[in-house]
Amino acid sequence: MNYNYAGRIQHIKASEIREILKLTEKPEVISFAGGLPAPELFPLREIMAVNDEVLERSGEQALQYTTTEGYRPLRRWIANRMNTRLKTAFDEDNILITHGSQQALDLSGKVFLDEGDAVLCESPTYLAAISAFRAYGCTFVEVETDDQGMKMEALERALKEQPTAKLIYVIPDFQNPTGRTWSLERRRKLAELSAQYNVVVVEDNPYGELRYEGEFLPSVKSFDRTGNVLCTGTFSKIFCPGYRIGWIAGGKEVIRKYVLVKQGVDLQCNTMAQMAIAAYLDRYDIDAHIAKIREVYKKRRDIVLSTIRRTFPPNVRFTEPEGGLFLWVELDESIDTVRLLEECLKRNVAFVPGGSFFPNAHKQNTLRINFSNTRDELIADGIERIADAIKSMA
Amino acid sequence: MNYNYAGRIQHIKASEIREILKLTEKPEVISFAGGLPAPELFPLREIMAVNDEVLERSGEQALQYTTTEGYRPLRRWIANRMNTRLKTAFDEDNILITHGSQQALDLSGKVFLDEGDAVLCESPTYLAAISAFRAYGCTFVEVETDDQGMKMEALERALKEQPTAKLIYVIPDFQNPTGRTWSLERRRKLAELSAQYNVVVVEDNPYGELRYEGEFLPSVKSFDRTGNVLCTGTFSKIFCPGYRIGWIAGGKEVIRKYVLVKQGVDLQCNTMAQMAIAAYLDRYDIDAHIAKIREVYKKRRDIVLSTIRRTFPPNVRFTEPEGGLFLWVELDESIDTVRLLEECLKRNVAFVPGGSFFPNAHKQNTLRINFSNTRDELIADGIERIADAIKSMA
Repeated sequence: MNYNYAGRIQHIKASEIREILKLTEKPEVISFAGGLPAPELFPLREIMAVNDEVLERSGEQALQYTTTEGYRPLRRWIANRMNTRLKTAFDEDNILITHGSQQALDLSGKVFLDEGDAVLCESPTYLAAISAFRAYGCTFVEVETDDQGMKMEALERALKEQPTAKLIYVIPDFQNPTGRTWSLERRRKLAELSAQYNVVVVEDNPYGELRYEGEFLPSVKSFDRTGNVLCTGTFSKIFCPGYRIGWIAGGKEVIRKYVLVKQGVDLQCNTMAQMAIAAYLDRYDIDAHIAKIREVYKKRRDIVLSTIRRTFPPNVRFTEPEGGLFLWVELDESIDTVRLLEECLKRNVAFVPGGSFFPNAHKQNTLRINFSNTRDELIADGIERIADAIKSMA
Repeated sequence: MNYNYAGRIQHIKASEIREILKLTEKPEVISFAGGLPAPELFPLREIMAVNDEVLERSGEQALQYTTTEGYRPLRRWIANRMNTRLKTAFDEDNILITHGSQQALDLSGKVFLDEGDAVLCESPTYLAAISAFRAYGCTFVEVETDDQGMKMEALERALKEQPTAKLIYVIPDFQNPTGRTWSLERRRKLAELSAQYNVVVVEDNPYGELRYEGEFLPSVKSFDRTGNVLCTGTFSKIFCPGYRIGWIAGGKEVIRKYVLVKQGVDLQCNTMAQMAIAAYLDRYDIDAHIAKIREVYKKRRDIVLSTIRRTFPPNVRFTEPEGGLFLWVELDESIDTVRLLEECLKRNVAFVPGGSFFPNAHKQNTLRINFSNTRDELIADGIERIADAIKSMA
């Protein structure tokens, strides 16, 4: 048949990363492509113990339907954690459990975006946020960034020029794809501009816990006096991604809307996964676990950076992230990184070409390197192969 | 702040059932309200065993990201099961794992519905399907039904009269809320009309495995020669709902679109839950487990029916379902079942008023009774209390 799809289907394209991940599944490829956490760090024994404990103690509850809002003790933990770490002032009714923080983005689109609305975002920005929002028929305004985050003069100009501006999407901590972190001043200013222009901010924060140096900074939300700022979070990077447990946090009225939307979307998140994470948090020391993750990833970042410094041509620019999973490379403008990836795949090494992190601009001379999921002893070799491929194209 | 929500938010209302469920949580209430499976039947020991097995054998994989499509061995099992039970001709690439079959409905809306499109559905129909589709700004055409299912003359009339008809939504087996099952002839005719008018059918089938008498019937899909029919399914009623694992099945081209949409929505379903269910299906006899569920629910249905026959006023009409979780009651037109529910809550018994199962018509003299989640010894007492409340309003 000739399927009569919805108009929005034309906006929806295959995710370049997910297609590339398929190519890089061959075991001989050293992959810096995905955004996968290191599986050897998953707290496997502890997860087995809490699974058994939850099923022994409350099996019928854990396998049954629950509320759309999510498991109350878990929401309480999240609110407390955010208040401590991000200087917010939440309680459990400010929190909705979502199917990963990806669903928090999709629900944000569903709650706020009409066809033709503009989303203002960092340039470049998280690929799958572009997919999530684009499905609602929005346009994107890319706002210039530097090492301090989004440039506030550029944002204010965009807010003035865009009567359809509906949502500002940012990742202030260890941004995907650049690894950059916003300065305190920019965070404060964003909250101000959001109030002044009455535009909602979605502050996406999947990596904030993974800081390897420097001081934790308060969230944009902590400067919000109007309720305009919504925050996402996730257990994917500090516990495991396979459980698909994330959240959205915000004012109670707006969270109530998200709950209604989620009812129609999928009723609720996995009950067992929520209870198992809550039991883990209750019984084990997640800070000790996160410290272990930080130690491993910091070391991997350091090897990547030192190998880049040693082997990449001198005109290559790259970020030096204080945390997170990614760094960002800008090559000579003559180099198309999709072509470079082909060269790299011949050398059994992979990364993600940067073009698709720009909703409009598609700067083809950029690339993203993930450093969380490559074993220490392979990293230098892998980066050297990329350097070799770059040189072969110069 | 004054939130500037998307236009669709005005279509999204609180689910009446989920709000009522909150009222009926008091332990002294005998509730026929929810659609919950009986938790005492969850295969708790087996789930503990397969959880441990999966984590022992493939823990890193089970806790990591996986593909959007879902875990391949599980998709293979589903395809085979559907082919045997529903006379379809699927392989694993026809199957996308979804976050419960509820997500299959939401994704169907996202793939097919533009603002103003019409969804043709049974009158009455599943409440949360109305919520899922309505969020895409569609209208609903309720098509008349009788004990054989949707009336095909009424459907054809609607298809002729509705140039915006985009999707036909049906639950041919033990429908929610009525418990009715479509005849073979109507199934065949629906596939024909779908081809003739080139309108997609979503055949929702959460209860099909739970047949207590009579013969299994082939699906609408089995008569589909064009690829117009998509089928949903779920493990919620035959395994457990807390894991949130369902699926959508259809032609490979259209399932590919669903996969792209799901990438932006939530990346993928819970990896561990998919692997645990696959391990359960591999290691245990799910047919023996389903036989046990059938036996328990059949007995409960029988007690409900015999008590209704004995105690309800003679002008009350009710369905006598051959399977599933629900039956449907029509009272004298003078009785509003929202008022009746108030009377019932005074007597510590609950059901769901029928009005909200009609997207437009809202017949207020109807109600739905769930019989899967009330212990045998409470059922007669509970139904008698409803009878008493009905008599008090006559």
